[in-house]
Amino acid sequence: MLPLNREFSHVARSMTRDLLGYISHDDFISFAGGAPDPTLMDASGITECVRTVLDDSGPDVFQYSVTEGEPELRQAMAREMQRRHLPARADNILISTGSQEILFLLARVIINPGDTVLVEAPTYPAAIQAFTMVGARVIPVPCDDNGIIPSELERALRDYDPVITYLIPVFQNPTGRSMSERRKDEVRRVLAGHRSLLVEDDAYSPLAFDGNAREPLCHTYESESGAVYLASLSKFLSPAFRIGAALIPDWLLQPMVVAKQVSTLHGSVIDQRAAALWLDRVEPDGVSSRDRALDTMRATYQARCNALRTQLLDIVPDGTHITDPDGGMFVWIDFPEELRPQVNTLSLIDDAIEHEIAFVPGTEFFPHDSQPTSVYRNVERKDSTTIDADTKLEGQLSIRFSFAGNSIPVMRTGMERFATVLQNALR
Amino acid sequence: MLPLNREFSHVARSMTRDLLGYISHDDFISFAGGAPDPTLMDASGITECVRTVLDDSGPDVFQYSVTEGEPELRQAMAREMQRRHLPARADNILISTGSQEILFLLARVIINPGDTVLVEAPTYPAAIQAFTMVGARVIPVPCDDNGIIPSELERALRDYDPVITYLIPVFQNPTGRSMSERRKDEVRRVLAGHRSLLVEDDAYSPLAFDGNAREPLCHTYESESGAVYLASLSKFLSPAFRIGAALIPDWLLQPMVVAKQVSTLHGSVIDQRAAALWLDRVEPDGVSSRDRALDTMRATYQARCNALRTQLLDIVPDGTHITDPDGGMFVWIDFPEELRPQVNTLSLIDDAIEHEIAFVPGTEFFPHDSQPTSVYRNVERKDSTTIDADTKLEGQLSIRFSFAGNSIPVMRTGMERFATVLQNALR
Repeated sequence: MLPLNREFSHVARSMTRDLLGYISHDDFISFAGGAPDPTLMDASGITECVRTVLDDSGPDVFQYSVTEGEPELRQAMAREMQRRHLPARADNILISTGSQEILFLLARVIINPGDTVLVEAPTYPAAIQAFTMVGARVIPVPCDDNGIIPSELERALRDYDPVITYLIPVFQNPTGRSMSERRKDEVRRVLAGHRSLLVEDDAYSPLAFDGNAREPLCHTYESESGAVYLASLSKFLSPAFRIGAALIPDWLLQPMVVAKQVSTLHGSVIDQRAAALWLDRVEPDGVSSRDRALDTMRATYQARCNALRTQLLDIVPDGTHITDPDGGMFVWIDFPEELRPQVNTLSLIDDAIEHEIAFVPGTEFFPHDSQPTSVYRNVERKDSTTIDADTKLEGQLSIRFSFAGNSIPVMRTGMERFATVLQNALR
Repeated sequence: MLPLNREFSHVARSMTRDLLGYISHDDFISFAGGAPDPTLMDASGITECVRTVLDDSGPDVFQYSVTEGEPELRQAMAREMQRRHLPARADNILISTGSQEILFLLARVIINPGDTVLVEAPTYPAAIQAFTMVGARVIPVPCDDNGIIPSELERALRDYDPVITYLIPVFQNPTGRSMSERRKDEVRRVLAGHRSLLVEDDAYSPLAFDGNAREPLCHTYESESGAVYLASLSKFLSPAFRIGAALIPDWLLQPMVVAKQVSTLHGSVIDQRAAALWLDRVEPDGVSSRDRALDTMRATYQARCNALRTQLLDIVPDGTHITDPDGGMFVWIDFPEELRPQVNTLSLIDDAIEHEIAFVPGTEFFPHDSQPTSVYRNVERKDSTTIDADTKLEGQLSIRFSFAGNSIPVMRTGMERFATVLQNALR
């Protein structure tokens, strides 16, 4: 046995991904993952595209391909980004094995141990992992219901000179909140004065309940380092395809391509070509497959979001704050401060799993000095470390619930179980 | 613009991958890549497996999946490794996005800047990149026609205390040579006395011309750190699937899974399930698709290898050494020392590209203190650095030729062009 890399040894397993294992139990109800409902996806359209790729391609569909991505998919993703009002060119797009890979490669290419990265408080856990893995100091910046607070961002930029500022401006993971247009302008203005690279993660904006995809933060953004914009096909085509796409500024493009050469060479050729076909696919009635799939998801997720919030409001104690998203997949609840230490969502998860439900405790969404932060006795893992339940960890009073994966009746059953778990804790 | 990570900034683009761009020119003949001939692959069998996956799966084929890999593919890869006489269990197998990803993750998980990695001289360039990218000192160990020299390995283990020893014992890339069984025993004995992790890259052993896949080095290997064994489906199913599989010792498995969680989450679900089906697929006459595809490739590659060697022997000056592989995809030529500095294969590549052929100069297969080492004026890249052509770089008198990708008549035309290029250099 060898000692592990110093920085890597601070990275913990993802609880969200470990909890995935419970989805296979029939009676288990998970509110944990950021997994879209696969029954809402365009299975027949996707299948047809895969068949077309296999039928119409030459032997090159089985051959090695270029690192940057299949040309037709880079073009299709450029058009997808142009629909979001970004001046995207296919030449600046790198196709990735899920948009997660871009975060991982960015961390590798840019960060030196000890460098600082700013993130929203709370933020996407696997981004924290990617930055922590290369020895970055990950600093959470305070947010309100409108996203990151410009004055706090300005202060953090001045105090830490971060190499990267990682933001999820629209239907944020984990909170579901979005920046207003005015807030975006303020954030752009603040960032433009610093050398920090803006990394904008925009996996969820197509899932706007009202059907109007929000404008990205980097839409009108100009700064010295520019911005990396991350799009994903996981939330509306299929996560199983593992396809993300990043719009990358000129100065950073070649280094990112080299990093991808060394990591995965390129992504699945069949999947990439099928995805490109699907993005341009028009059904006999003239509606695009993409728009039809998104319409179905938007309507369903909005109804589920409303149902979940209504059910949660019935259960939680007075003073609990629940976000009110207008898109995406998540709601975030903050229990009132006076319930500390009665409610510790990190401890709640054990009882929840016994009652066959899962959610992600808020602590997962904050960087912590000493990882691993996760304790959950019922999940089989040999490397768990017990932390003092009384330690005042950020996020202990919070929970992320996903409303994307379960039907309304199933959510109702899940909420009944959650009510029991909560009563046990408050007893 | 930001400065790049200190270690990463020493990593150059892969010339092999840049040269891929030339494959699309109709008249261009490339001996460069390690790309199998896709016309030899089982296109109809693979297509049928993809169709079966899409027809028979539920919605979960479009959903997120587990990081370790699809269970049926882990099982199938365990059986594949058992056929190579390894005591492989599915539980210790991690499916990766190409076996390259394993090298990249291993580098991340294990290496600290300044650590040493031992490799064969010469070795696979993308392994050098992966190790260099995290700040490793990559030390090439002298080899003979039988692979790494045990006494030299022993000395290097003692002198450098390497964390990883990376070897390609069978049909080595780039030389095509293989260790004898006796040499393997000696190498095992030498390695077992040290803490270095053996990383055995075995992409090529199924391509034995005589049909008998060679026994892996780690077959009977026991040591403190154990071994990571890398298998690939790229060389006999399809590289476009991007599927590799690693057999990983218990102590290292969880860290590798965490690293893959953070990099790509998991690979393409459709591709993984189709690959699992294909590995078990039996044709109506009772022959497995895998064995039939391999038989076709072996016979074709052997004939091409013989033809290329015969043609090369007609062209090269007296005293040139050409390896005589009995499997794999490559031959390696060493020009005699007295041709230095007349022949510098790194300079030869420019004239070669003008004559519409490509091969990989030997310099690419050695670690160099200051990357990038590659100069090729005709290849469009903005970051090229000119090096002093007189610098005595290892590999300047060597070339790797792949015999896998071209028919014998095409190779003949290619060799005529190579003869001209060589005459120009020797003039």
